[in-house]
Amino acid sequence: MTTHKFEHPLNEKTRIYLRVEALLAQLLDAAQHPSGIQYQLFFRALFDLLEIFEQIQLKSELAKDIEKQRQMYRSWLNVDGVDQATLRALLQDIDGIHRSLMNAERFGLSLKNDRFLSAIRQRFNLPGGACCFDLPALHYWLHLPAEAKQKDTKHWISAFQPLSDALHLWLRLTRETGSYQQQMAKNGFYQGEATDAHIIRLTFEMDDGVYPMISGHKNRFAIKFLNFDTGQASTQDIAFQIAVCN
Amino acid sequence: MTTHKFEHPLNEKTRIYLRVEALLAQLLDAAQHPSGIQYQLFFRALFDLLEIFEQIQLKSELAKDIEKQRQMYRSWLNVDGVDQATLRALLQDIDGIHRSLMNAERFGLSLKNDRFLSAIRQRFNLPGGACCFDLPALHYWLHLPAEAKQKDTKHWISAFQPLSDALHLWLRLTRETGSYQQQMAKNGFYQGEATDAHIIRLTFEMDDGVYPMISGHKNRFAIKFLNFDTGQASTQDIAFQIAVCN
Repeated sequence: MTTHKFEHPLNEKTRIYLRVEALLAQLLDAAQHPSGIQYQLFFRALFDLLEIFEQIQLKSELAKDIEKQRQMYRSWLNVDGVDQATLRALLQDIDGIHRSLMNAERFGLSLKNDRFLSAIRQRFNLPGGACCFDLPALHYWLHLPAEAKQKDTKHWISAFQPLSDALHLWLRLTRETGSYQQQMAKNGFYQGEATDAHIIRLTFEMDDGVYPMISGHKNRFAIKFLNFDTGQASTQDIAFQIAVCN
Repeated sequence: MTTHKFEHPLNEKTRIYLRVEALLAQLLDAAQHPSGIQYQLFFRALFDLLEIFEQIQLKSELAKDIEKQRQMYRSWLNVDGVDQATLRALLQDIDGIHRSLMNAERFGLSLKNDRFLSAIRQRFNLPGGACCFDLPALHYWLHLPAEAKQKDTKHWISAFQPLSDALHLWLRLTRETGSYQQQMAKNGFYQGEATDAHIIRLTFEMDDGVYPMISGHKNRFAIKFLNFDTGQASTQDIAFQIAVCN
């Protein structure tokens, strides 16, 4: 039996955080196995990230959210029963990451101004637009020795470091607030309540042949399991585990 | 020294043929190494192909072009000095491929009507839109056993077979009409003439640090070599080989 892990954001900002997390993972993964068409994934992730940075002020949003976490953990200083050594180490991590974030350029600025990247970005979204005649400069770059390409990808990735550190910290601390509880979706449906939650996480067995459609906001959410083969709402009782993360 | 191979279409239809060829290659390549993010490349190529099929009547264009090639090769029947056995075998290939093409559905029709594919296609182009919460059905599919996924990808790919056979035949016969000639781009510039040509093919050495920008149409074309590092027109004399294919 394969267990299916699933996450759903309960607000628009967290939705973007999770997308950015997935794009950063794709960027690193594609850069580590750089063979031919893998570079499409690399550049696609990079340009998707730049597009997101143009749409929202991700840096200031993230700085505010990290600051909220810092305040909360600070309130536990000198509280009995809290491991103070661990807490102080965590606060030091938060301080360092927050500082790097505040000192960082607007996300993606240097990449947006990169001549090579901005030249290929324009045509990259054409259907089949990564052909040599559409993007001769990219085609040349793809023929460079592996070391030269790795040097470039490493340099581009380094521009995302302050974002990556801050985002991963925030998501890790947020995910740690939830613990999995066993639940049952009667007739394939479950409704839950939360308090200012950011993410709900599910696990369930693939053998049921269903996947979840989730709707909701920070205080209330509904999970409807759909049958994969028919696309219709399931009427089975589905056992699953759920963690609500604030 | 690495040799850089480069192709450029001299008309809009051939431009689409070459794009479709690249997308079919991406589709097959991604299906053969199906691990995690590779599926992004698979679905991206598939949806790009569907988008192209919606924009142009690729099937009838290709049938007309194959028919022209058939007429030309037929005119060589019983001509002295032409290997008749090879010619007849080729004509038989052309007949078979043309027949399959004419019997095929409008390209992409069955895939366009596929419930699973059309559900995920809508959100696939969102920046970072391949997250589990954006595409829960895709996420479920990605967790299926490898054999189940391979069965699906094989089925989807099979819908492209008549297109793939016809396109590869046409491109092979077209490319075979050209033979490489040594040429020199004085001060990085070369102008050439052609007669109803479809594709020009170039090879040149990476060591020159340049890539070509080509403009032109079926009877005339210009090649300007640009310096990769500066993006400016090169003023060097660049030796290259060129084949013009009709």
